[in-house]
This record gives sequence, structure tokens and C-alpha cells, in this order.
Amino acid sequence: TVKDRIFAPYTVFKGKAALSVNPCLPTFTKSTSGGFKVDRRGSVMFTFWPAVGERKYDYEKRQLFAMSTTEVGSLISLGPKDSTEFFHDPAMLSSNAGQVRKSLSIKPYTEGNGYFISLNVVNNILKTNDKFLVPVTTGEFAVLRTACSFALPHIMGWDRLTNQHHEGTVKGPSKIDPRMPDLEWDK
Amino acid sequence: TVKDRIFAPYTVFKGKAALSVNPCLPTFTKSTSGGFKVDRRGSVMFTFWPAVGERKYDYEKRQLFAMSTTEVGSLISLGPKDSTEFFHDPAMLSSNAGQVRKSLSIKPYTEGNGYFISLNVVNNILKTNDKFLVPVTTGEFAVLRTACSFALPHIMGWDRLTNQHHEGTVKGPSKIDPRMPDLEWDK
Amino acid sequence: TVKDRIFAPYTVFKGKAALSVNPCLPTFTKSTSGGFKVDRRGSVMFTFWPAVGERKYDYEKRQLFAMSTTEVGSLISLGPKDSTEFFHDPAMLSSNAGQVRKSLSIKPYTEGNGYFISLNVVNNILKTNDKFLVPVTTGEFAVLRTACSFALPHIMGWDRLTNQHHEGTVKGPSKIDPRMPDLEWDK
Amino acid sequence: TVKDRIFAPYTVFKGKAALSVNPCLPTFTKSTSGGFKVDRRGSVMFTFWPAVGERKYDYEKRQLFAMSTTEVGSLISLGPKDSTEFFHDPAMLSSNAGQVRKSLSIKPYTEGNGYFISLNVVNNILKTNDKFLVPVTTGEFAVLRTACSFALPHIMGWDRLTNQHHEGTVKGPSKIDPRMPDLEWDK
Repeated sequence: TVKDRIFAPYTVFKGKAALSVNPCLPTFTKSTSGGFKVDRRGSVMFTFWPAVGERKYDYEKRQLFAMSTTEVGSLISLGPKDSTEFFHDPAMLSSNAGQVRKSLSIKPYTEGNGYFISLNVVNNILKTNDKFLVPVTTGEFAVLRTACSFALPHIMGWDRLTNQHHEGTVKGPSKIDPRMPDLEWDK
Repeated sequence: TVKDRIFAPYTVFKGKAALSVNPCLPTFTKSTSGGFKVDRRGSVMFTFWPAVGERKYDYEKRQLFAMSTTEVGSLISLGPKDSTEFFHDPAMLSSNAGQVRKSLSIKPYTEGNGYFISLNVVNNILKTNDKFLVPVTTGEFAVLRTACSFALPHIMGWDRLTNQHHEGTVKGPSKIDPRMPDLEWDK
Repeated sequence: TVKDRIFAPYTVFKGKAALSVNPCLPTFTKSTSGGFKVDRRGSVMFTFWPAVGERKYDYEKRQLFAMSTTEVGSLISLGPKDSTEFFHDPAMLSSNAGQVRKSLSIKPYTEGNGYFISLNVVNNILKTNDKFLVPVTTGEFAVLRTACSFALPHIMGWDRLTNQHHEGTVKGPSKIDPRMPDLEWDK
Repeated sequence: TVKDRIFAPYTVFKGKAALSVNPCLPTFTKSTSGGFKVDRRGSVMFTFWPAVGERKYDYEKRQLFAMSTTEVGSLISLGPKDSTEFFHDPAMLSSNAGQVRKSLSIKPYTEGNGYFISLNVVNNILKTNDKFLVPVTTGEFAVLRTACSFALPHIMGWDRLTNQHHEGTVKGPSKIDPRMPDLEWDK
């Protein structure tokens, strides 16, 4: 229920924009067999909003980018000189497909020691083009990398696998190979 | 019980086949002393099934490969230019030993930035030979590596060590060396 | 409540000073919507106190340095030849701003295989200047790095995201992009 | 209580000896303030026992080595060409000090791709000298590294920090610097 929700975004406020990062857990539905299945996928939400004065930011002008599991995988595996870019169409598969284009790019500083994270949102319906640029230091990026690595199994739903009690462990017919790999003889 | 089970595989759909990865927890049995012992080992199940048309896959033709703890260790320690291969005989130790041979190989792209994961199943009883080839990008492999690293202590049963309450902590006769390594004097 | 608190610092005793490291969890407040928000940020507390004789240390003369989320990110991303320094003013934003200056620095040994962690506290009100220098070995720094990486999502409050039961998972209107990134066709 | 205990060692059986690795959690005592303090430190127990024939091992002849927090830190930070050695005296600080000497060493294979883990126990009272040598592959060492990294916060007692409920979060007088590091203005 809503009263159990926790809001704990990691936020950096920089000269031209602020960036807030927050994990969104998947939702589950009961399957006919009685188990649970992922219904809506989890993601890590990146929220950008612009500076409108010194130390003043306008949250009403925010734009969102929901990083998928695989995009989070790309982010956490970035080497110090690697860059990456993701493209989203929020209306994909609907009649408005192609009308709104979002791209999020991550590029290393030329001199190293950090990354530029930028979001570009082109909205052909509203005729708007919003751009946000947030420089993140090595320390801030290490927080993103560590926190997103932590969040990854959770947005995949794999953390639920450990919520079972002793009693709840199923011991049905084995579906795994009846071999004992750790017992194999050393040649 | 079954109604507590969670199905949350990580799945990639590619041109010729789909690959789905899902952790399988170990089962435990009560020991005579009252404690719990691992009964059936955990694994990370790799499921492959073929494409049979554009964006169409035939799950009935799937083949499974249960990665053991040590094989998962090999996967998560692969460097960008490393490759590895695992061999399973699902009927090992039975009269059908050697009749079915499964091999799963992981090889880096020649140009880097990803791996080919392939499964080959030779069944001498059914006279079949199934091959699956799934290219995974750097981001997808980072998901596999991170999710499998997360899953590893769980398929080993080590996550159960933390399920104890304050009351449940045993304070019996010490079995560890009565030394204080962190207190040793600095020379 | 206090009776649930756990004290489990990681402590190293060295020739001139002792260093103790302990995570401090954030606190939460109920928001008007019924959810929970981070109230006071978490940190990793570094406590230094001086040696006053052989294997004798004076805890009364301790000085504290609360590492923020981003500073912990800097610590865990330090390469073997990197150094870093953090500056705190405990009275920042008050009338005593600038009167007390704390700086914590981490520098690699010249010959590698460890780091010097030092704290300097200049107090212009009390006219004191306290300095602490603690050499930490590669193994000890690996403990700090691993334990702080573990603690990071906890001091951010992200671990609370997993405390929800099946019943508690909200299935409200979707705020994430209705796309299926893992299902995208392989070109 | 004993009936909550879980036995889930990671074991490798090799030509001359077997090696089993198992985390041992710390124990806690109630402090006068009502909180909990680490009483006996946690460790990761390494157990070696000899081969006495083909695929036969004699568990009665086992020797134990309890890796401390810092020694686990050394193990998980070993590079592919690094080696390390630890010395224990189980009777340290007692009248039998120096009578039993244990040393555990980890050395990389000359050709890479694994490590030799060996234990040497010299007992001057019993006039015995037990030696065990266990080669571990890269995959097996990755299991040790990942499982020990997972276990580290648990043997330190830091995992207990997350066992608190919403109600249990203390909001007493702040002991951390009243600064807002993530809100600092970007120059």
C-alpha cells in the first residue's frame, strides 16, 4: 500500500540542472498456478529539472527517463573512457509513436574524473525541445554505479527469491541436472 | 509452497533464438541435530528456445542448462577477451550416461562489446542435435554478471545465514581461534 | 527504539591512533501522502582517537568525520594510486561557520599496498589542532571498500525498497515508459 | 537456537585434499543501554581434510583456519598475480602460546588461471605437522571471492543494521555534521 512507500532519491544539484535517481520496483501478479509473475517491469528513474536562478530549480519543468534493466547494465559496465546513449519513445506501439523522442547520453569528461549525463526530449506535438546537462564527478558516478548495481536484482524481481521462509521452500520433482559439479574428481 | 514462488527470468530475444536466465534456489532438509542442510543444490538455469519466424519463438522446443555454483563463478569472472565452455551429461551416473551431451559456450565478439552464448545438445537416443546461438551485448552481459553475482550466495544457501533474529544467535562453545586479528599492534 | 540498535564498528589499532568505521542509517519521516521520506541523511562515521602509550588509546580525545553518500562513492572508487581529500565545516550555515575545519585525506603508500588515512581538525574557538594518521593495509582497505559498498544503498535508504511484502506492492497508474526494451528485435 | 542453523559450505574435492568454506556469524550481547554489541567476532572458516584414496577423504583428520575480517579483505582483493599468507596461533595469549602454528597461503598458478591454497599446521605438543594443498580454478576462486565479499558485512555484523523496522528508526539528537554535501553548489 502507499503508506509503505519509501522516497529516497539520490540527487545532485549542478549549475544548469538537477538530476535525481530513484529505483522503481516491478509489480507482480498472481498466476493461475498460485505463484507470482512480474507484471510491470522495474526500472531506475532518472529525473532532470532545470536551474532557474542561483540555487533555484523548477521541478515543474522536469523530464523523466526510465532506465531499463539492460540500460542499467550498460551504465554500470561503463569504463572510464566509454560513452553510451539510449533512445526512448514513450508512445511506442501507440498512434503517437515517433512524436516524442527522448535520448539520454553519458560521456566521459575529456580530462577524465567524471561524466556528462545529458537528456534531450524532442516533443513534436508540443513543439518543444528540452535539454539538460549534468556533470557528475567520479565520486557521484561511483554512487550511481554502486546504487544501480544494488538496485539491478531488485528491479528484475530477483530479490523476491530470498523472501521465502524455511517452510516455504519447495521440494518438488527436480528440474535440474542430477550432477554434482563440485564433486568432480581432480585429474 | 508453490504460491510463494516468483517467476522473474531475465530474457533476451534475438534473431535466431531467445535466452532466459533464472536462479533456482537450493532446497534444505532438517538434519538430526535440528539444523538445516542443503539437500538439492541451487543453480542458475539458462533456457534457450528457437526463433521460428519474425518475432516468433517456439518455447516447446526449449533446452535447459543448469549452471552450477562453480560455473556461475567462471561466468562472472570472464574478462572481455576470455571464453569458456561447460559440459553436462544430464544422465550422468545412470545407465543412460553419455547418451545426451550438452555444452554451453561463451565467446567474446571478435570486435569486443559482447559475447556469443551458445548451447549444443546432442541426444543419441532421439538422434537429435539442437544448436542455439544468442549474441549478448555488453549491457546485457553486465546484467547477467551482476544478477548472477547477486544470485551466487543465494544458490549456495549463504543468504540463509542472515535470516536469524537476535534471539536466534547461538552462543555456544567457540570453535574459532581465540585471537584478535584487528587488535594486533602496529610495528 | 534504542534496544534494536547494533554497534558493530570496524576498528584498526595502529601505532599513533585508532580508526573506527561505522555506518549510520538515515531516518525517515511520514509524508502527508502516507509514504516515508528520508529525513536525516545516512553516513559512514569515521572516528579517530589517539594512542597515549603502548596499546593504550584515549577514546575521550576522539574526533568524528561523517562521510556523506558522495564521499563514500569517492572512497570506494579510489584506484591504487589515487588520493582524495574531503573538507567539512560542522557549523556550516550557522553563526560559527568557518570556526572549525575538518579535513580527511586518503593517500596511497609510496610503495603501494595500502593507504594513509588522516584527519585534521582545526578549532579556532578552542585554539586546538588535532591530527590523526592511520596507515591501512591493502586487506584493511578492501574491508573498508567492501563494507562501505555494502553500506552505501543502506545509508541512501534504498534498502528500504525491498522491505515490502507481496501484498504491499503498489499497482497504481504507470509512470514509466510503456516500452519493452528487452523485447526489442535484434537487427 | 540450533534448529535455525544452516549448514551450506562451499566444498571442492581435489586430488590430495578437500577444502570447505563456511561463514561463521558474530554473536551479540545486550549492552547496558539496551542495544546490541558484537561479542564474538565473525569469521570465514576454511576446513581442510586429506584424501586417503581415490575419491575418499578422511574428515576426522581435518584442520580449521578461521579467516578474520581483515584476512577476508586480503583474499577478496588479491590480483591475478598476487599471493598472500596468514599466520595464526590458536593458543595466543594463553600458556600454550607458540606451541601450535598455523599458516594459510594463497599463491597463483605459474601459468595463471587459478591459485594454490595450502594450510600448514605445526603442533609441537603432539609433534605433528599437517600439510594440505588444494588447487582452485579461476571459477572456483571467483566463487570464493564473491561469496566472501557477500559474507564480509555479515561477519562484521553490518547486515544487522538493516533489520530495523520503520517504527524502530531512532530519531535522537544528531551526531553527524549538519551539512548537506549533495546540495553544495557547483562552481
